[in-house]
Amino acid sequence: MRSLEEKTISETTIYKGKIIDLTVADVLLPDGNQAKRELVKHPGAVAIIPVIDDKLVLVEQFRKPLEKTIIEIPAGKLEPEEDRIEAAKRELEEETGYQTDDLAYVTSFASSPGFADEVLHVYVAKKLKKADDPLAKDEDEFINVVEVSLEEAKQLIETGNIFDVKTMYAVQYLELEQYR
Amino acid sequence: MRSLEEKTISETTIYKGKIIDLTVADVLLPDGNQAKRELVKHPGAVAIIPVIDDKLVLVEQFRKPLEKTIIEIPAGKLEPEEDRIEAAKRELEEETGYQTDDLAYVTSFASSPGFADEVLHVYVAKKLKKADDPLAKDEDEFINVVEVSLEEAKQLIETGNIFDVKTMYAVQYLELEQYR
Repeated sequence: MRSLEEKTISETTIYKGKIIDLTVADVLLPDGNQAKRELVKHPGAVAIIPVIDDKLVLVEQFRKPLEKTIIEIPAGKLEPEEDRIEAAKRELEEETGYQTDDLAYVTSFASSPGFADEVLHVYVAKKLKKADDPLAKDEDEFINVVEVSLEEAKQLIETGNIFDVKTMYAVQYLELEQYR
Repeated sequence: MRSLEEKTISETTIYKGKIIDLTVADVLLPDGNQAKRELVKHPGAVAIIPVIDDKLVLVEQFRKPLEKTIIEIPAGKLEPEEDRIEAAKRELEEETGYQTDDLAYVTSFASSPGFADEVLHVYVAKKLKKADDPLAKDEDEFINVVEVSLEEAKQLIETGNIFDVKTMYAVQYLELEQYR
C-alpha cells in the first residue's frame, strides 16, 4: 500500500507548560501538498485498574477541562526516565493509599492520536494493602477514593459520573475477564 | 463529600488553531490555594464502529503526533452546530465510502480529561451500503480502508497497528456484544 507518512518541513514551539507543550508543524503530505499539524506533547502516563475483594478502587476528582467532577481509575503522568511499574505503584499509593507488588501489564494506547502524543500504559493491580504512611498526593491534587463493584461501575457510566475513556476501557476489561 | 471544584480566577488564550485552542487558567483550589491548569479546547468528535458481514471497517492513517501509521475506527470532529448523527454519517462516508441510516448510539467519553475537553460520541453503524459517489475526504486526509474480522482486529492490537483507545474500546465492545 502507498505510504501515508507526513514529513516535517518545520516545527514551531507555541507553548512549553507544566503538563503539556504545544507545537505546530508544517508537513509534506503524500500528494506533495503541505498542511499544518497542531501537536500537543505529553510525557505519557500510567493508569491502574486496582481490584480488591471484587471491588474496583476509583478516584473522584475535578477535571478542569470538562468543568466536572468525575470518577476514574487512578492515573498519573510519567516523570522523566521513570520506570512505568514504579510510576504505577507510586500513583496507586498517592491517589488511593494502597500498595502492591502485584501489577500485571494490560496494554498501552494513545488517547487522542489526532492532536496529542499522550500514550497511557495500563496495569491491573491486585493483592492491595493499605499503606501505613501513604505517599502524599501532588499539592494541587484533591481526590476522594471510591470503591465500587463492577455493576456499580456500570451504573456510574450510565449516570455520567464515569465519563473518561480509560475508565470505560477498564470496566469493559473487567467485564470481559469474567468470560476468559 | 467535600466539593472538589476548582473555580477559574482568570484564563489566558495562548493559541487559537484549526483543530484545537490552548488556554491557561489560574484556578482556586478547594484548600484556598491557587494552581495553573493547561486546557486544550476541542470541538468534540464522533466515532463510528462500522460492521458489515461480521467484519469491522477500519481506516489506516498517519498520525503526526505519534509519527506512526495506525488503524482506527472512522472518526472526525464535529462542525459547529452539526447534528451528531449527521456528522457520524458524513465521517463514515468520507472516510470509508459506506453509507447507512442504521446508526445506534453507544456512549460518549472524554479522551484526555487531565488536559483536554475533547468528548467523543460513539455509534455502531450497520446495514452499510457502498455510496455510488461518496463524499470527498478532507483535502489533507489520506486514508486506506481496511476490513477485518474481530479476531484480526485483536491481532492488530497485539502488533501495535491498532494503538488508539477509541478503537480498542470498540473492539472490546464488539467482543462483549457476543455475550449479551
